[in-house]
Amino acid sequence: MKSSAYLETLIKKFSKLPGIGPKSASRIAFHILGMQREDVEGLARAMVELKRNTFTCAVCGGISDGEVCSICQDPARDRGLLCVVEDAKDVLTIEGTGEYRGVYHVINGLISPLDGIGPDDLNIGTLVEKCRGDSIREVILALNPSVEGDATSLFIARLINPFSVTVTRIAHGLPVGADLEFADTATIIKSLEGRVKI
Amino acid sequence: MKSSAYLETLIKKFSKLPGIGPKSASRIAFHILGMQREDVEGLARAMVELKRNTFTCAVCGGISDGEVCSICQDPARDRGLLCVVEDAKDVLTIEGTGEYRGVYHVINGLISPLDGIGPDDLNIGTLVEKCRGDSIREVILALNPSVEGDATSLFIARLINPFSVTVTRIAHGLPVGADLEFADTATIIKSLEGRVKI
Repeated sequence: MKSSAYLETLIKKFSKLPGIGPKSASRIAFHILGMQREDVEGLARAMVELKRNTFTCAVCGGISDGEVCSICQDPARDRGLLCVVEDAKDVLTIEGTGEYRGVYHVINGLISPLDGIGPDDLNIGTLVEKCRGDSIREVILALNPSVEGDATSLFIARLINPFSVTVTRIAHGLPVGADLEFADTATIIKSLEGRVKI
Repeated sequence: MKSSAYLETLIKKFSKLPGIGPKSASRIAFHILGMQREDVEGLARAMVELKRNTFTCAVCGGISDGEVCSICQDPARDRGLLCVVEDAKDVLTIEGTGEYRGVYHVINGLISPLDGIGPDDLNIGTLVEKCRGDSIREVILALNPSVEGDATSLFIARLINPFSVTVTRIAHGLPVGADLEFADTATIIKSLEGRVKI
């Protein structure tokens, strides 16, 4: 029995979010109880506004506040360098490094015949259109190193290789700080295949 | 750079909640983006309503939807059995077992001279008043087994021992499923001290 129905409702709703179990949900609910009323209303508003006011960027397919996202609108970005990612979350991850100065293209998934997802279900057609012109020098394929990711990378590479565009793939190998002893076989094979001259 | 200011705002706000780092916050934000609009509005409303419509129960000091919480109002509860807890969260934890059929008293903290918290800062006065009558048979002290918890338990026990009330403390010892080999010294000492005849 819960002493408050409002508390019970919020804990149930929070438990449905990814990575939050019933214990974390009740911890968060009690934290919200202790917050200032304005801050709680601010958090609630931020959630509703994100859902109401964001769209898919017409250029890159990522998350945007308007027709075109702020990355695609940024004049300082190198429009000749195009990074292809699986979903909008990956844009955030790569932006988190603060190192990449090109633009993005979100394909919204990976080719997966077992799940019935073919190339036509993905945002690949517009990528080919972008490569048809002269503006793009290099396409970096930054898909996850899985069977589906590799198959999708290969498919895209074949499609755009005919154009005057360099196609690259992000390096797969041992993560920084890892121990060779504890790495899995597939990663060690990738790191041997991808060895570079020093 | 984030592609959406709304996304950035929500991730920042979620990162401030307990147990949620920047990575979990962005995972949750993207999950919210993929949720139905009604569900997002429902979650936002639940947060605001919890903050707006809950009060401190006038009887036990826990969280309540009205003047008196539903546990204190429940006629099936044994009013002769009173469980003393540190905060309202602990009520939820003990209710989670589904085993306890008595009522609660939340003292809202622990005596901690180092933090400047004395008995007068806690909800102890009303506890003594409750014990003055004949209605309570037993008071169970369910405070955490820390220096402050033990000191507070001892302080309360001394205050209410003069009344015709049995004062007990929850058992401290090895948790169920634990291994003696890996238990800390303090826990082993407590489990020896609290040994029971079989």
